Amino acid sequence: MGGLMDNLEEAATAIKMHDNFVLTTHINPDGDALGSLMGLGLALLNAGKNAVMIMPHPIPVAFQFMPGSRQVQKTSDVLARFDLGITLDCTDITRAGEEAQKVLQRAGKLLNIDHHISNQYFGDLNVVDPQAAATGEIIYDLLLKAKMPVTSEIATNLYTAIITDTGSFQHQNTTAKCLRTAALLLDCGAAHRVVQQHLYEQRSLESLRLLARGLESLSLNEEGTVAWMTISRDSLYSSGAAVDDSEGLIDYVKSLKGVEVGIVFKEVNPSEIKVSFRSNNYLDVNKLAAHFGGGGHERAAGCTINGELGDIEQLVIRKTEEQLFAMNENSGGPRK
Amino acid sequence: MGGLMDNLEEAATAIKMHDNFVLTTHINPDGDALGSLMGLGLALLNAGKNAVMIMPHPIPVAFQFMPGSRQVQKTSDVLARFDLGITLDCTDITRAGEEAQKVLQRAGKLLNIDHHISNQYFGDLNVVDPQAAATGEIIYDLLLKAKMPVTSEIATNLYTAIITDTGSFQHQNTTAKCLRTAALLLDCGAAHRVVQQHLYEQRSLESLRLLARGLESLSLNEEGTVAWMTISRDSLYSSGAAVDDSEGLIDYVKSLKGVEVGIVFKEVNPSEIKVSFRSNNYLDVNKLAAHFGGGGHERAAGCTINGELGDIEQLVIRKTEEQLFAMNENSGGPRK
Ligand SMILES: [Mn+2]
Ligand SMILES: [Mn+2]
Repeated sequence: MGGLMDNLEEAATAIKMHDNFVLTTHINPDGDALGSLMGLGLALLNAGKNAVMIMPHPIPVAFQFMPGSRQVQKTSDVLARFDLGITLDCTDITRAGEEAQKVLQRAGKLLNIDHHISNQYFGDLNVVDPQAAATGEIIYDLLLKAKMPVTSEIATNLYTAIITDTGSFQHQNTTAKCLRTAALLLDCGAAHRVVQQHLYEQRSLESLRLLARGLESLSLNEEGTVAWMTISRDSLYSSGAAVDDSEGLIDYVKSLKGVEVGIVFKEVNPSEIKVSFRSNNYLDVNKLAAHFGGGGHERAAGCTINGELGDIEQLVIRKTEEQLFAMNENSGGPRK
Repeated sequence: MGGLMDNLEEAATAIKMHDNFVLTTHINPDGDALGSLMGLGLALLNAGKNAVMIMPHPIPVAFQFMPGSRQVQKTSDVLARFDLGITLDCTDITRAGEEAQKVLQRAGKLLNIDHHISNQYFGDLNVVDPQAAATGEIIYDLLLKAKMPVTSEIATNLYTAIITDTGSFQHQNTTAKCLRTAALLLDCGAAHRVVQQHLYEQRSLESLRLLARGLESLSLNEEGTVAWMTISRDSLYSSGAAVDDSEGLIDYVKSLKGVEVGIVFKEVNPSEIKVSFRSNNYLDVNKLAAHFGGGGHERAAGCTINGELGDIEQLVIRKTEEQLFAMNENSGGPRK
């Protein structure tokens, strides 16, 4: 296994040498997954190669504005063999879905391009850069290395990838390099406004009503260190929102001044409560979620608990305060 | 009046040649105003020059994290004469406030640095670049031209300036150059996370409650082209929020899918309604606001109308629909 730069060079060579590609990304795709898929896919097609982009499900409506989305085929319709299979933004080959796995295993060789630190290096060749804010950022470097032109359509895809994974350059993963890549993509004609409008300015009345219900339920503990929001089945139904619409809500909870832990309680079924945790600076919410049989990362984790909404709220908040307290006891005060 | 680049060169020379500066920005300062003020102010101080930064009012709490904010002095306390006065992000010298105007007029020479297209060129030397997303972007170019080092403190100020004026790179004014400048500022040590946390992750419970009240009031016209939100005195008081907390609300209104015009009605006093307009793509809301004695820009405008909240809502929405209808009639359909 060579260094990252060697692997990028080798991947560029593999791409130039082969003519027959199948590309895919992870199920429940986000903007980075699809932007990387179609960014690289269109570049290969523009170079006159046979490149088949596959996904098990149709492209979500919210991402259909992305150039190339109509050219993505249903995985189960694809029966051919390919010289080179490429996975994008997948930590693990199972993330591509069962059917895609079969197609990829039939391919002569597998190239794995990703930016997750937990990547399993499952390819014959692996281009994994945890410093990259998005897989789309790596694809830009790859196209440059392979001397393949970045058209405005490709640029729009890769720009979408970066915007999605950095939350429009707000998240911690925003680096100087990723801002520079974004600048180069604008030079190539990425449609900044189109991307922004489709990602952030196409809300439904129902999703904003759900936000209102959630915000009305916002509570804080006495110290102001733990904040939580409750989405009951009632508020979900009365708002008319879809379950997906509740996804960004936790960002509001953790944005409260002075709050270390933000929690959302979501009644997904009667007596089945999905709990999401975020911490701002020091509490390991992975450990907290693990206590309830869940898991995740240090700053973002979740679990599902069976029981009545009110009981579970009490239970989880008490445990959260306990862990915060233990932390502050040990360090002689809250860590910065 | 020379070209922009000549003026930037001339401004760099003026900065190098003088030793005694007074700097200020506009009243009700935003992140660009303060970031430009303190970015340039600290650079002059680091160069061993006498540079006095003045403001009529204390720096708003939300911006006190910015390096140098404690060194800004109260305008009325400053009685000295200066060789060179500098205004930052001011379209007009009156924007600096009355007292500052006197201090600036006593200075030997006036340098006006701004990025507003409506700038009045009131300085002895004017560096006005409407292509710049923020005045902070121009300050970076100026420091480079004057070969003055950009410390991490200066970089944090200029980064705050750019983030504020582009809405974290979401607004239309986001250019490749502004992304490149932001990348260079990160290279210089700008504290990305500190800026993001202070600008976007320090909300008050009251402001989120006000958002909830506002969202609950969201309405759409039959065609789904006009959306509006109402902030009554009651919702303002019952949420406990400050008037400033209502500022970002209009972005939610205009983010609704299919909506061309977003409106917020704010009952600032009994029978005194402040109306804000935003349009997404084609309606000139400056003209719309002008109809009610207000004004602004094509895509953002406002007015104040006296009368009962409910009556004014009806009146304004009817007029908005009328203008939208006239527009679509003339062009044979909604413009894209
Ligand atoms: Mn990704
Ligand atoms: Mn500005």
